[in-house]
Amino acid sequence: MKKIPVTTDDRPKEECGVFGISTPHGDGVAELSFFGLFALQHRGQEAAGIAVSDGSRVRLHKDEGLVSNIFTPEVLAPLSGYHAIGHTRYSTTGSNAHRNIQPFVIETMHGPLAVAHNGNIVNASALREELLHRGFGLTATSDTEVIALMLAAAGGRTWQERLERTLPAWKGAFSLVLLAADEVIAVRDPWGFRPLSVGRLPHGGWTVASETCALATLGCTDIDEVRPGEIVTLRGAEIDRIQALTPSGQPARCTFEFVYFSRPDSFWDGQNVHHVRQRLGRELAIESAIDADVVIPVPDSSIPAAIGYSAESGIPHNDGLIKNRYIGRTFIEPTQDMRERGVALKFNALRENLEGKRVVMIDDSLVRGTTAGPLVKLVRDAGATEVHLRITCPPITHACHFGVDMGHDGDLMASRLSVEEMEAHIGADSLAFLSLDGMMRAVGQSEGYCNACFTGEYPIAVHEAQAKLSFEGAIA
Amino acid sequence: MKKIPVTTDDRPKEECGVFGISTPHGDGVAELSFFGLFALQHRGQEAAGIAVSDGSRVRLHKDEGLVSNIFTPEVLAPLSGYHAIGHTRYSTTGSNAHRNIQPFVIETMHGPLAVAHNGNIVNASALREELLHRGFGLTATSDTEVIALMLAAAGGRTWQERLERTLPAWKGAFSLVLLAADEVIAVRDPWGFRPLSVGRLPHGGWTVASETCALATLGCTDIDEVRPGEIVTLRGAEIDRIQALTPSGQPARCTFEFVYFSRPDSFWDGQNVHHVRQRLGRELAIESAIDADVVIPVPDSSIPAAIGYSAESGIPHNDGLIKNRYIGRTFIEPTQDMRERGVALKFNALRENLEGKRVVMIDDSLVRGTTAGPLVKLVRDAGATEVHLRITCPPITHACHFGVDMGHDGDLMASRLSVEEMEAHIGADSLAFLSLDGMMRAVGQSEGYCNACFTGEYPIAVHEAQAKLSFEGAIA
Amino acid sequence: MKKIPVTTDDRPKEECGVFGISTPHGDGVAELSFFGLFALQHRGQEAAGIAVSDGSRVRLHKDEGLVSNIFTPEVLAPLSGYHAIGHTRYSTTGSNAHRNIQPFVIETMHGPLAVAHNGNIVNASALREELLHRGFGLTATSDTEVIALMLAAAGGRTWQERLERTLPAWKGAFSLVLLAADEVIAVRDPWGFRPLSVGRLPHGGWTVASETCALATLGCTDIDEVRPGEIVTLRGAEIDRIQALTPSGQPARCTFEFVYFSRPDSFWDGQNVHHVRQRLGRELAIESAIDADVVIPVPDSSIPAAIGYSAESGIPHNDGLIKNRYIGRTFIEPTQDMRERGVALKFNALRENLEGKRVVMIDDSLVRGTTAGPLVKLVRDAGATEVHLRITCPPITHACHFGVDMGHDGDLMASRLSVEEMEAHIGADSLAFLSLDGMMRAVGQSEGYCNACFTGEYPIAVHEAQAKLSFEGAIA
Amino acid sequence: MKKIPVTTDDRPKEECGVFGISTPHGDGVAELSFFGLFALQHRGQEAAGIAVSDGSRVRLHKDEGLVSNIFTPEVLAPLSGYHAIGHTRYSTTGSNAHRNIQPFVIETMHGPLAVAHNGNIVNASALREELLHRGFGLTATSDTEVIALMLAAAGGRTWQERLERTLPAWKGAFSLVLLAADEVIAVRDPWGFRPLSVGRLPHGGWTVASETCALATLGCTDIDEVRPGEIVTLRGAEIDRIQALTPSGQPARCTFEFVYFSRPDSFWDGQNVHHVRQRLGRELAIESAIDADVVIPVPDSSIPAAIGYSAESGIPHNDGLIKNRYIGRTFIEPTQDMRERGVALKFNALRENLEGKRVVMIDDSLVRGTTAGPLVKLVRDAGATEVHLRITCPPITHACHFGVDMGHDGDLMASRLSVEEMEAHIGADSLAFLSLDGMMRAVGQSEGYCNACFTGEYPIAVHEAQAKLSFEGAIA
Repeated sequence: MKKIPVTTDDRPKEECGVFGISTPHGDGVAELSFFGLFALQHRGQEAAGIAVSDGSRVRLHKDEGLVSNIFTPEVLAPLSGYHAIGHTRYSTTGSNAHRNIQPFVIETMHGPLAVAHNGNIVNASALREELLHRGFGLTATSDTEVIALMLAAAGGRTWQERLERTLPAWKGAFSLVLLAADEVIAVRDPWGFRPLSVGRLPHGGWTVASETCALATLGCTDIDEVRPGEIVTLRGAEIDRIQALTPSGQPARCTFEFVYFSRPDSFWDGQNVHHVRQRLGRELAIESAIDADVVIPVPDSSIPAAIGYSAESGIPHNDGLIKNRYIGRTFIEPTQDMRERGVALKFNALRENLEGKRVVMIDDSLVRGTTAGPLVKLVRDAGATEVHLRITCPPITHACHFGVDMGHDGDLMASRLSVEEMEAHIGADSLAFLSLDGMMRAVGQSEGYCNACFTGEYPIAVHEAQAKLSFEGAIA
Repeated sequence: MKKIPVTTDDRPKEECGVFGISTPHGDGVAELSFFGLFALQHRGQEAAGIAVSDGSRVRLHKDEGLVSNIFTPEVLAPLSGYHAIGHTRYSTTGSNAHRNIQPFVIETMHGPLAVAHNGNIVNASALREELLHRGFGLTATSDTEVIALMLAAAGGRTWQERLERTLPAWKGAFSLVLLAADEVIAVRDPWGFRPLSVGRLPHGGWTVASETCALATLGCTDIDEVRPGEIVTLRGAEIDRIQALTPSGQPARCTFEFVYFSRPDSFWDGQNVHHVRQRLGRELAIESAIDADVVIPVPDSSIPAAIGYSAESGIPHNDGLIKNRYIGRTFIEPTQDMRERGVALKFNALRENLEGKRVVMIDDSLVRGTTAGPLVKLVRDAGATEVHLRITCPPITHACHFGVDMGHDGDLMASRLSVEEMEAHIGADSLAFLSLDGMMRAVGQSEGYCNACFTGEYPIAVHEAQAKLSFEGAIA
Repeated sequence: MKKIPVTTDDRPKEECGVFGISTPHGDGVAELSFFGLFALQHRGQEAAGIAVSDGSRVRLHKDEGLVSNIFTPEVLAPLSGYHAIGHTRYSTTGSNAHRNIQPFVIETMHGPLAVAHNGNIVNASALREELLHRGFGLTATSDTEVIALMLAAAGGRTWQERLERTLPAWKGAFSLVLLAADEVIAVRDPWGFRPLSVGRLPHGGWTVASETCALATLGCTDIDEVRPGEIVTLRGAEIDRIQALTPSGQPARCTFEFVYFSRPDSFWDGQNVHHVRQRLGRELAIESAIDADVVIPVPDSSIPAAIGYSAESGIPHNDGLIKNRYIGRTFIEPTQDMRERGVALKFNALRENLEGKRVVMIDDSLVRGTTAGPLVKLVRDAGATEVHLRITCPPITHACHFGVDMGHDGDLMASRLSVEEMEAHIGADSLAFLSLDGMMRAVGQSEGYCNACFTGEYPIAVHEAQAKLSFEGAIA
Repeated sequence: MKKIPVTTDDRPKEECGVFGISTPHGDGVAELSFFGLFALQHRGQEAAGIAVSDGSRVRLHKDEGLVSNIFTPEVLAPLSGYHAIGHTRYSTTGSNAHRNIQPFVIETMHGPLAVAHNGNIVNASALREELLHRGFGLTATSDTEVIALMLAAAGGRTWQERLERTLPAWKGAFSLVLLAADEVIAVRDPWGFRPLSVGRLPHGGWTVASETCALATLGCTDIDEVRPGEIVTLRGAEIDRIQALTPSGQPARCTFEFVYFSRPDSFWDGQNVHHVRQRLGRELAIESAIDADVVIPVPDSSIPAAIGYSAESGIPHNDGLIKNRYIGRTFIEPTQDMRERGVALKFNALRENLEGKRVVMIDDSLVRGTTAGPLVKLVRDAGATEVHLRITCPPITHACHFGVDMGHDGDLMASRLSVEEMEAHIGADSLAFLSLDGMMRAVGQSEGYCNACFTGEYPIAVHEAQAKLSFEGAIA
């Protein structure tokens, strides 16, 4: 079934959440993977999968849909074993969807190997060509298959050795979780683009996940980041950590994990996401103060920033927009004609909280800029006398090549328009973005982050990334 | 597929949302019904249906699932016509689910009739027996079928006449929307238990819905409540309103629509729900003041009350709990053993906002009381030094017989335990409920509301309601 | 999904198979119903259902599809009980398909009642109007619902009494099986249009089925026809037979059960169907002898007649056409263009058995006459020097109103064309039909059969039947 | 869903049908593939797929189920192009079903490649190990993937060159159809184990299929076998044939294609299958004459042999067993207890044709021997005074390693029991098999056929084949 893109949604799309678990007792490994993936659902809602190893055989189930729809008790029952990995995916391409669902599982001369990946290898196209020219045949179009096949062919006595040989070739963002017959291995690129953390299970064993919220959901202790360039092996009660690659001198954590992607209860680079978001709001209040009567968030992601903005500015915080929480497989969008008549599918305004008021509306980002205008109009139609839009990050002017789908450069509103032009286009009384410095103050760091989408200064040269789409070429 | 009850959810369950539309032009009637039902999704997530009449024939589609999953463009395409009704359902009974999905459609000597119902006819069992003894055969187990068959057999020249003859027999809560060949009719019981409002469509025609949020979603103007005892007929551009039954001297609007059910942007009895919830928080702050460092809501329903509590008390408001938004068809719950290990499926705590703090936690109700204890523990484990639980309504001590599933009297925590006992059971440092007077002050009325679940004073004698479950008897 | 009519199929369509079982031990009642329905699958492939009673409650499962696809072990497991009925259906109307799947189950003042019906009540439209005018509301468009509701309203102390009161009102063909809380009741119209037989189960209890092949499949003994006008009650180990209506002085068994519908191993009116079909072939050989080299059947239904024709004529019998056995949900038919290029979906010719030969091709009937021409061409293209088509019944000139879908009178080839015109249209070297007398000689009876489709002499006046389609009117 | 093996079915299982088409006009290529596969459905009913190339991109659809259920108009619509291949599969392994459905499609350095395969490479396990040791990762467990990956890695300028390099390594049976961006290539192993034929489409272009019945269904002319060791390239209007491998001095066509697998209207080695089956019956009548009253086939495959036996012996031919044609996804089998009570799911006996008669029952093979005994009993219980079982081939004593699933040697009845012992076990009055010589006389050849299942003389050493099951090892 074709999915009509939800055009009222103007958020960047994270492409994946990864998860891994290894236990000495094999108790409920598939169920715990389910709960872990469930906590990572916000990182991808299109497809999910779990692969489990019982020590020799790998069993796999993956499908399109939400974690809680795919994994029924009947589906989980046969997935018994000691070690497992899982993946939840936001799918960028329709026709290839099924083949590219992860984990990607192959048999190799060293036994079975399953791979779950969050990120984007920018030189994947070149690596793929290399594999093809070595005579490999590829069945999917993802960089995950490239990763898996390179590992299978890497020689070496252990998967750790094979990783050490192969890692230097991979340029880009990769938070990887691998499942072999009797271990789970987590790896993170030397730039540390995307998050990945490990934790100790309360009843023995270890788990690894894209975000700490999944570890917290499982009751983990000893939660720690997988370091950039590190290989972490989970083998029952044992954990083994090797610094395989020198971390990049200039780490490049994704600031957007703080701004939008991560769940508020997760920690990123040692900082609680909700807390940083409050500070983003505070910084914004300092930088772009305005006289107003109420601060409202665009729910749900901007709530913490609105709390911070309110606390800093003294302007009361309240709800101004109600979001329909049941946006599922929304195939049907109001027609343009219906929209002009006022049909609103996703947000309704709270007139009581807005009427006659000067409103500061906090949003986390403007990407294509398609929803900000209608939201400003909605608030104004509900009686607001002024609407001041405040964005908790700088203008996004450049596409991401490290695992986030923001569209092409040309799709980005801020790459085409000045702030004044955007303000006019959106129809806000004022529009202000948080400065790069302000954002980094909120984060509490001045360095070590990738801000390429704001600055165009990519930590890795990305000319190769342009070739990426040719992947889609031969097999539709 | 059997659904395992989501035992971590301790909310009362609304049983239905109803919707109706009639247009002179027949433009997008099914799509508008979809958007309307979508805005009523919070009133029932188990099943939904739409019936459309083109002036002579009624076409129907209904199924289990969310509105946005059931109604694809392919499903809506053949549902063309001028008049439509819709229903969204929270299903109390598994095995009968499919037969009892609404709208319920029959052919009668007066043409087709479709019925969508929100409420509960307390004497339905007796009325059903009467139909059976008149020789009728019934195919479903719902009071909706009783309503439909009584109307079919009522004689009279118009559906309005038949309603006028039949209405006096129905004791209980009924916000009904009927579809005949060439009109939509809305009726509300003389007590006005459940909400029902009409509005004018921007491009001609009228619509009726359980909540005003659905009317606002469609851009309606001239929004007005269907009065208790009133019959409202929508026929293309025309609207016709008859006061068929004298409204009960003592109206009995459900207070719980304010406390929990209705969407915050809806209006109930002329008052905005979000606004009333803020006042519930304010009243609670006045009645049960406590020295604390932060006020947190149990998301999402208690957010407005937390805002109000904070505003009144001066204690800062912040998030303390993060709720997983992707609770879909959650078949799988953590085992007791997993829960003891700390596996949490639905909420995670925000340590940064709680640690070392004295916390006021606002929740809207305690029903079975199964989730309050674990939530208090979650907050305490995250470092809160004190946890004070504040509930925005009085203790619920009696079951509802007017369309809300709170379980039987014996299931209700407050029917068995005193406030002190509940406090101890839950493990809160203090527990306080809003008083009945405080709640009604927030509502802004001292009379005209059904507070039977708090007081046991039922507006209608309910001994007949006990026989209700015998419906389920003969056909499983 | 819409089904494209399989235009290469020119057979009359039987509308139903019915089944019932009652046991003292309740052992495998649903499974035995499954096997029984499976043996009746040829009487309807569109939908099927089973209703089981455990003595007080009736449980039902019905769906579209083949018996072996609908009933999995998971579906059968909860259908436990002592008594059951089943139905398999050929559906004439698409949009109403689901509501009209049988058994039809209602609750009545006398407990649950499930009805499975094969046949057609010609005055159903009038009876339906009568029910509507008594104030009933109807949910489906079938005469089965009319039967069920009339029984529910009939008064009387037992279902047998209610049947005795109601039976005289029903004009037409009805082989009915009813399920009440603690018994199964079989009834046959006084004309005996459609078959219905009972048999004793090897391990106790009784069963009833449209055809004896289903009873044989279950290992039954004491197989006997339910007599025209008889009510047979199965209650565990007991069987009770009442001659409720005087059988019609002129019985009207459907001759077409012999010609085409019934499975060859079934018995109808005491005669084995395969045997009668052989005699049809023999009579045809006597009446329409021709000098030829090979006799071929149109598979599969004409095989016995070809055997008989060969035996009588001395012309060798062989296969000449191969039929693709996997015609399932054939959505896709060759386009006209493809057909002209020779694309054949259903039959291929066996050149080796046809080349240079004078061929007698035996078919059981010509209805619309759409397939005979292409088949003659196929045989001729495979090298046959002559093709003589022989039909094992007389020309069908009138529509059936007693449960068989042959289309309207105007659709029938023989109602528009003489035999010579048909011969020319089909392109056969000769075309001959078996005479009415010849057919009845093969059947072994000169009276007691309905031959209305050949003669237009309907055993019951059918002017009322014309109103039938108005059923479809109000609810699409 | 798990499928319970249909234990009442005692036939060998063919593992595949393959199909390919190339046209200059691209008109209806997917539809024609559908019709072609539909005609090959008897070679595999578990899964099917079609891959289409538009000259640069390959589009694929494959799924479990029957051809007519998988391919709806919606599914076929996007499969536009000039060249296509298809596959229909009998699946031996449940858990791997989905990954092993064909065509198998990969991207290679030379563009896309899709492979459909009928047969079995006996040294696939060794070849697979070799690929693994070269560092390849494999996603499926089939020899088809081995074929595809070896071709991808073979170097050479064209697919034909790559085939020429790779073919010598493949030991075993392979009738392959490949799809590249702009051509379809058919290849057959030098032994010619399995059939494969090409034909000219009436409106331009060429097609290739496992059996000529598929070519006839499409109206093809110039039908010719792909010769053992030949590579045939179809490229729009062009056809190109290369004798790539010297055909084996001792060809090894599968005799069982005549005995059971092929559709009666197909040609194999220049002979019509139906005709050969008639001769098998004649030879059997000569070798194992018996005095009897009627010859009956076990339907449907033994009908031609029964015709031949009757013609030769002069004993009349008739039907004695009726087979239920609706055996679909038969999940439910009668329990042993039910079977003892006489519950028969698949066959019923025709008492009228058997009672008091001495019966010769013709069957095509005995494999496990599970159904012969019950069938003999069924016929005897229907009144036959004698039952003489005649088998149209010799006893099967050895497993097939060339693409037919007959089970392991130990499963084969004739490998454990003498003819006398089998006769006693089955309970026949006499049991006779056709001799090897008699069978080959019917085939019309004394050499060039693989009769290993009867003789144990495998044309290729099969010790390697034993390792086959280890494929299933690592990924379940």
